[in-house]
Amino acid sequence: MTSIKVAFGQTNPVVGDVAYNLDQLMKCAEAAAGEADVLVSGELAISGYPLGDLSYREDVIHRSETALQKLVEASSDPKYSSLYFVVGHATLAASKSTHIQSSKAIAHNSASVIHDGKLIGTYHKQVLPNYDVFDDWRNFVPGNQELIFDVSGTTCAIAICEDIWDHNSTRPASLRKAGVELLIVPNGSPYTRNKALERRAAVRQFQDGFAVAYANLSGGQDEIVFDGGSFLINQSGVEIQRADFEEGCFYDLAPELEPVKSDDMSTLWKVLVTGLRDYCRKTNQTKLVLGLSGGIDSALSAAIAVEAVGAQNVIGVALPSRFSSNHSITDAEKLAANLSIELRKIPIDPVHKAFESALQFSDLAGENLQARIRAVLLMGISNTDNALLLSTGNKSEIAVGYTTMYGDSAGGFAPIKDLFKTDVWKISSWLNARGDTEVIPENSITKEPSAELRPDQIDTDSLPDYQTLDQVLALLIEHSATIDEVVANGHPRQLAEKVEGMVRASEWKRSQGAIGTKTTSIAFGSGRRVPITTRFTQL
Amino acid sequence: MTSIKVAFGQTNPVVGDVAYNLDQLMKCAEAAAGEADVLVSGELAISGYPLGDLSYREDVIHRSETALQKLVEASSDPKYSSLYFVVGHATLAASKSTHIQSSKAIAHNSASVIHDGKLIGTYHKQVLPNYDVFDDWRNFVPGNQELIFDVSGTTCAIAICEDIWDHNSTRPASLRKAGVELLIVPNGSPYTRNKALERRAAVRQFQDGFAVAYANLSGGQDEIVFDGGSFLINQSGVEIQRADFEEGCFYDLAPELEPVKSDDMSTLWKVLVTGLRDYCRKTNQTKLVLGLSGGIDSALSAAIAVEAVGAQNVIGVALPSRFSSNHSITDAEKLAANLSIELRKIPIDPVHKAFESALQFSDLAGENLQARIRAVLLMGISNTDNALLLSTGNKSEIAVGYTTMYGDSAGGFAPIKDLFKTDVWKISSWLNARGDTEVIPENSITKEPSAELRPDQIDTDSLPDYQTLDQVLALLIEHSATIDEVVANGHPRQLAEKVEGMVRASEWKRSQGAIGTKTTSIAFGSGRRVPITTRFTQL
Repeated sequence: MTSIKVAFGQTNPVVGDVAYNLDQLMKCAEAAAGEADVLVSGELAISGYPLGDLSYREDVIHRSETALQKLVEASSDPKYSSLYFVVGHATLAASKSTHIQSSKAIAHNSASVIHDGKLIGTYHKQVLPNYDVFDDWRNFVPGNQELIFDVSGTTCAIAICEDIWDHNSTRPASLRKAGVELLIVPNGSPYTRNKALERRAAVRQFQDGFAVAYANLSGGQDEIVFDGGSFLINQSGVEIQRADFEEGCFYDLAPELEPVKSDDMSTLWKVLVTGLRDYCRKTNQTKLVLGLSGGIDSALSAAIAVEAVGAQNVIGVALPSRFSSNHSITDAEKLAANLSIELRKIPIDPVHKAFESALQFSDLAGENLQARIRAVLLMGISNTDNALLLSTGNKSEIAVGYTTMYGDSAGGFAPIKDLFKTDVWKISSWLNARGDTEVIPENSITKEPSAELRPDQIDTDSLPDYQTLDQVLALLIEHSATIDEVVANGHPRQLAEKVEGMVRASEWKRSQGAIGTKTTSIAFGSGRRVPITTRFTQL
Repeated sequence: MTSIKVAFGQTNPVVGDVAYNLDQLMKCAEAAAGEADVLVSGELAISGYPLGDLSYREDVIHRSETALQKLVEASSDPKYSSLYFVVGHATLAASKSTHIQSSKAIAHNSASVIHDGKLIGTYHKQVLPNYDVFDDWRNFVPGNQELIFDVSGTTCAIAICEDIWDHNSTRPASLRKAGVELLIVPNGSPYTRNKALERRAAVRQFQDGFAVAYANLSGGQDEIVFDGGSFLINQSGVEIQRADFEEGCFYDLAPELEPVKSDDMSTLWKVLVTGLRDYCRKTNQTKLVLGLSGGIDSALSAAIAVEAVGAQNVIGVALPSRFSSNHSITDAEKLAANLSIELRKIPIDPVHKAFESALQFSDLAGENLQARIRAVLLMGISNTDNALLLSTGNKSEIAVGYTTMYGDSAGGFAPIKDLFKTDVWKISSWLNARGDTEVIPENSITKEPSAELRPDQIDTDSLPDYQTLDQVLALLIEHSATIDEVVANGHPRQLAEKVEGMVRASEWKRSQGAIGTKTTSIAFGSGRRVPITTRFTQL
């Protein structure tokens, strides 16, 4: 490879807003002009990714094609005369139904090479992921052609995202035979724990004598967060260039790079903040509201909210009931002071009593009632103050259905829904240790978790301790483990069966849950599709 | 073809309950013994269909395999000595990752031929649908082998469901060349309007000199309803055998059959009742509760509920507010009398006032408040009386977001969510005309639709008239139409843009919606996957 210089145009597109997305790419082009030979975007940077079934709409695809044409025209500006563009976009396929299995797909997931006012060629993604949150095989028509082109004397080719995860592929050898020196790979690769390590392993397994420029998107889109971190690995497998988490144009070569490590809390924190921040930004919402119970889940959610939209845009609401402890209020006050957010206090007992006069509630119904009164008040503030309500549940309680429907489950976004309770504790402690001052009140971290819906209630009345619960849940959910496998991992059979039963019985609750940021390999959301109606028996 | 006699073992399986599912098949076998040469089940009749990501669980697949083995043993009973079984089940695939695009799939979607205590062979589905509600390509490993076998001198082969919808397939010709006289096709084919006609067209297009036995499942599974109606078409394309909508064993040849017609209301009615009935039955719920506003949506939902679980198991609740009309109560009373269901009355004003003392609500928030108070009371009854709450919204209002989150959208099942308002009127009138007595109060059908959340409010204050709205929505949702296409169909551009904008802005509401019975080609639910975060601009 000659000394080709790569710039990563790591943009944060909004699905459907092609004008904005194109503008972001052009800003990267201005930064890259004179600094790099080729500017590489992430996957579908013009249309946004994932498009879901919007990919079936001809107008959506046409707009992506029109924007590409505008980019071709813009590239004729003399200031870009030495810059090649490799840009991701959707293209109408020649045939609607090359594969019957996904008969509605009309478009390719493509990347085009543009230079000096000309479209050099277009590559179509060949390997279409159809697992976890991905529906590419549903939504796109696969390609089957290489695109080989020359940039300043370097022979280049293109692959898109999943293309390079196919470890049985014969493409690496044929790319090498074709003389390819640099494989350019636009990606839409969402964050999950330790994903940065996995990406490098995949690249090194795929590369066969050629360098690889791995360009990712940045930012949040519904439940997923693209964590940027584009990188260039040379022919010898050495990483020589690396972009930040954030959006921007990155072209600096690094003389020496620290090896990528297992995930630290700081990346996870950025992901949680970005997921919420971009959901607000891209749906034009500036204010957030959430209930503050004095517990750790709402405290951590509030901290994320403050970093996402600013303290002046976060409304905390304490909603004490007849069963609330004193510390539920004092801890909420401490938190609001730590975060400099507004705290409103609305005791729910008058409304609670009015409901009890209207209807006779059973014990369980009476517990749920309190959570639902709080949701009605919070949604009242949400509607009146035009503030998005956050649901503050964690993955452990959502997994076992330890939530009240239309109560604490209510909200437009659930920032910590993919954090197990043990991770909530971990990142809260990390957050406090990060700066000079406390963020999450220490008492919220150390006190016994409780829903406070009846006198002296604690979570372990109904649930195993969270250390145990989270281990069992990780096995069941992330590894599709059987009961036998959970037992083989050292847990009592009775416990494993109880937890599995709770997970199964609460599918209907999760099917109505708010979206929230994915951080694990299997999050509750579009990446996990399980029937609600099931009945398991042994045979 | 010799005179082979086919019995359709049209069962109604429960996902995961292989013991129950096997039992249902054995009942069909007893009925078929001595009456037929071959008993054909629907797709995945042993494990249930669709399995979703449960197909990734080895224990789920193993149970299906164990049940198959039991069936093989049972078939050795002399009373079955002349009966062949063709039964759908899941099988562990030899390799986990024959296709990288769906790298988690471990199982085949299979059908086995069993006779006289022996497993003759197993066929694996080759064409895996991955559109609408189907995730077969995500969840299964495709097969690539024919299974040709002899039943009483007739040469038979197997295809499974989507296999026969591939009109470019070369299989028909090669099956004919192989001497196949009867193609046996287990299906998991959900009802949509006029689907019965489409199935026959697909069969006739696929058949090439051989007869086709098309066996469907029966009954509801989450949002879909299998509408049975298995049929046999002879080599000449003439339909000579047809099963009912309901589950059972069907082997009677018909001397002459009426041609299948376009859908009538009676099939749609059966579908709506079956969807709710089986959701209750399969999730062990016997009682239903719903709010009765005096309007047509709740009236129709109540009528469906009564037919699904019986009048004695349906609780109607009138929840009048300060804005409720007199007819809202009198029409609800009329309905309850017509249906012989319990009617409870809970005026919401005392609770309403208590909320207003607790918080200042904006006008819109105040409207939503009333719907949310009703939901809290209904969920209180749901929890206390152990009755499933029905959400009674129709497709038109759900499409444009004319619903209150955690208010009228609350519920575990939404029986009419896939009926446009105009269809709600149509089927309500049909229901009244069906018998001698009125079911839906005439005034509920004829009066102006209103949410009654402020004085003199009617739906058309905020929405186009429903005839127009439903036409535009059908184009946008079922045909992925562009604005230009809606205009080309005779609608004003401004109206088209307004409706499209309302649909887009309410994606987040639908993402938290209750499941409900699919009746159209694109229902809100797992068959329509659209990002929540979008921003559309022209370019």
